[in-house]
Amino acid sequence: MKNTQSDRSVRKVVIVGGGFGGLYAAQSLGRAPVQVTLIDKRNFHLFQPLLYQVATGTVSPADISSPLRLVLSKFKNVRTILDEVVDIDPQRKKVVLLDGELDYDTLIVATGVSHHYFGNDHWKAYAPGLKTIEDALEIRSRIFTAFEAAEKESDPLKRRAWLTFVIVGGGPTGVELAGAIAEMTRGSLRDDFRNIDTTSAQILLVEGMDRVLPPYAPQLSAKAQEDLSRLGVTVRAKTIVTNITEGVVTVRHGEEEEAIPTQTVLWAAGVKASAMGQILRDRAGANLDRAGRIIVEPDLSLPNHPNIFAIGDLAHFAHQGERPLPGVAPVAMQQGEYVAKLLKRHLKGDTLPPFQYADYGSLAVIGQNSAVVDLGFVKLSGIIAWLAWVFAHIYYLIEFDNKLIVLTQWGWNYFTRGRGARLITGKDTVSVLSERMKREIFVGAGNDRKG
Amino acid sequence: MKNTQSDRSVRKVVIVGGGFGGLYAAQSLGRAPVQVTLIDKRNFHLFQPLLYQVATGTVSPADISSPLRLVLSKFKNVRTILDEVVDIDPQRKKVVLLDGELDYDTLIVATGVSHHYFGNDHWKAYAPGLKTIEDALEIRSRIFTAFEAAEKESDPLKRRAWLTFVIVGGGPTGVELAGAIAEMTRGSLRDDFRNIDTTSAQILLVEGMDRVLPPYAPQLSAKAQEDLSRLGVTVRAKTIVTNITEGVVTVRHGEEEEAIPTQTVLWAAGVKASAMGQILRDRAGANLDRAGRIIVEPDLSLPNHPNIFAIGDLAHFAHQGERPLPGVAPVAMQQGEYVAKLLKRHLKGDTLPPFQYADYGSLAVIGQNSAVVDLGFVKLSGIIAWLAWVFAHIYYLIEFDNKLIVLTQWGWNYFTRGRGARLITGKDTVSVLSERMKREIFVGAGNDRKG
Repeated sequence: MKNTQSDRSVRKVVIVGGGFGGLYAAQSLGRAPVQVTLIDKRNFHLFQPLLYQVATGTVSPADISSPLRLVLSKFKNVRTILDEVVDIDPQRKKVVLLDGELDYDTLIVATGVSHHYFGNDHWKAYAPGLKTIEDALEIRSRIFTAFEAAEKESDPLKRRAWLTFVIVGGGPTGVELAGAIAEMTRGSLRDDFRNIDTTSAQILLVEGMDRVLPPYAPQLSAKAQEDLSRLGVTVRAKTIVTNITEGVVTVRHGEEEEAIPTQTVLWAAGVKASAMGQILRDRAGANLDRAGRIIVEPDLSLPNHPNIFAIGDLAHFAHQGERPLPGVAPVAMQQGEYVAKLLKRHLKGDTLPPFQYADYGSLAVIGQNSAVVDLGFVKLSGIIAWLAWVFAHIYYLIEFDNKLIVLTQWGWNYFTRGRGARLITGKDTVSVLSERMKREIFVGAGNDRKG
Repeated sequence: MKNTQSDRSVRKVVIVGGGFGGLYAAQSLGRAPVQVTLIDKRNFHLFQPLLYQVATGTVSPADISSPLRLVLSKFKNVRTILDEVVDIDPQRKKVVLLDGELDYDTLIVATGVSHHYFGNDHWKAYAPGLKTIEDALEIRSRIFTAFEAAEKESDPLKRRAWLTFVIVGGGPTGVELAGAIAEMTRGSLRDDFRNIDTTSAQILLVEGMDRVLPPYAPQLSAKAQEDLSRLGVTVRAKTIVTNITEGVVTVRHGEEEEAIPTQTVLWAAGVKASAMGQILRDRAGANLDRAGRIIVEPDLSLPNHPNIFAIGDLAHFAHQGERPLPGVAPVAMQQGEYVAKLLKRHLKGDTLPPFQYADYGSLAVIGQNSAVVDLGFVKLSGIIAWLAWVFAHIYYLIEFDNKLIVLTQWGWNYFTRGRGARLITGKDTVSVLSERMKREIFVGAGNDRKG
């Protein structure tokens, strides 16, 4: 892989990662007098805020994904490469890829975060997280397989474990997953089984802090918790997970430890920065925070490296407010646009004031007709908040190519309460299930609380 | 897994397979005074005629799949089990599953067909077929990965191989795949790459007979071939594949053998009956044809087993016309409905005349605005045939739950010429690609024709 030889004098901007930050930077540099190369491991941009809807069978992966080439097609100065960055050499200003290397004048790193099991990586096999399309399809298969297994299972204790869903982490993703699962057990799935009553399914949302959605105002957390309860979710606050093994998750609440038999554990708890953080620490002396995020300057560059920028979830920006900016899409988008604007100003010999995040508020959805919205000056919940959530998401999807499909699918689901995308896919569904059903895993686990 | 104990006197109908045949049988027995159990390895019905659109990135898997439970939800006498039949015992009237066994009074077997590599099963790794959702996603990933690799490849011969697509088999599936790939290289993908010209991609459709769509009238085959050429497909008739290895497919045309360097070979050639044919041969003395299909009586039952029926692609029905009925959806649907009707008549002590297929014609689509339709009394091609194809498919989809989405997606694609579902999914996309790009596989293969 070599740089295009066309014009040696044109400034080369290399962007690593096609998420909200990288894509917005690339789009903002479209038609600018620079040569942009966007590198991503995937050939599509993922609208991550709706990934939980793939995991719970409402929409399809392609409905919330846009091919990067399609989105960037009209910008002739932008090219896309499907590759992975394995190293960076700031001295020679080169990015090392799996296939070759690339020169850069400006480097924008936007590779985001992945799951973090707090040192318990072996939990991963039992408790998948939700970051990629593959994660979402894995979770979707697990959820719907659990109901199929319960329908076939004659042992009441085992059946109970198949009908118990434990979601670890009470942030937006955990709340969305728990709400969506509860809603389907009480709604779309209710009439589809003959041997089980899906409305009896237990959905447990486990959160270490004292309430769900901890960064939100306490009254919104309370409202969310109320709505979750109404849907059928049991919120276990101030509760931490101490172990996860096949068929059992162990939690602790104060002094009390409990083993919960369950076949479905979903991980929505911790995140850690992607490996680019460490690469930039080793190669460019970047300072990382405890989560591995890069602590950036007021203009989002790295200290002593004014031509290297970190944006989005990977960046720790602490120059505004008491805490660093949260890892949400609007921050990444604004940072991508900021760096693009900064480069364009630099080309004209101009400058730009430090990055300033314009916070239009936070949104978290709980279920149909139920969400919480914190706009700072006003706090909304219920159907008004839900409509705000729907419109905000459609507004953003409009910028890509999928709005029509998602809108249709949502409308269709809203009126039919169907869950048409609840496919169990992957190889050997039945034999894997058969193996799992035959295992004796609950012996002695019961539902006993140890004081 | 045990039969429900509710009513010992109610007749138990077990249906194996939730394709067109099995699902139509189950639906037709809904509300009849029988207890129906539908067994499938998957939790969804697949609208297979549109599977090529998943493989080529137009629609998503869920758009052409319906959860079996959802479709059958309203029939309280029908239950669905996610399981696999491993044996049948006609003496004890039992079906043996991976998880337990089931009693039946009437057994309807509708497990269809799978690929057949004519004794060359090792070709499978290089030339995936198109029967399942997983197959379609694998093909989709291969097609779009090929363009990504070509964009990165600097060696012109290697690049040529990445831009060469060989489709083996000129039946409807092969024609649809070739047409769709050609169309995207000339249309939706054209502006998305910087280093390659997708319109230069070679799409070869290899057919052993003297024309594509051999069962159709010769003038329709000629029209299809003309339309394919216009789209950019090179049809190689009277050509057979003699070998497939990594990076090269070898074909023979008369005495002439040719090695074609290609990274993407798709298999649309042979099918063989599913394993249920052999099980019923061993257990119930069923006669099989060369493709392993069960030769059935005029009422679709097995000889000497009036309570066991085989329908759909698995059945060889030779009591009508010169050849057995073709393996198409309308035959399966009508056979499913016939057996259901027969059972209902039997319950009343009545009989039914032998099965008679009502042939409303054949349809094959080539590309946008292009199809061929053979209604017997009239033969259509071009946009009229294409509209007939669109309406026929929407008509059938209406019976399930996806019509609205597919319709929207089609309309959207039609006007935007976008291919929004062109995701490369699966684990380790980039590292697998990197490995493949590094291999030296074309040494000496060139494009030389050996006389």
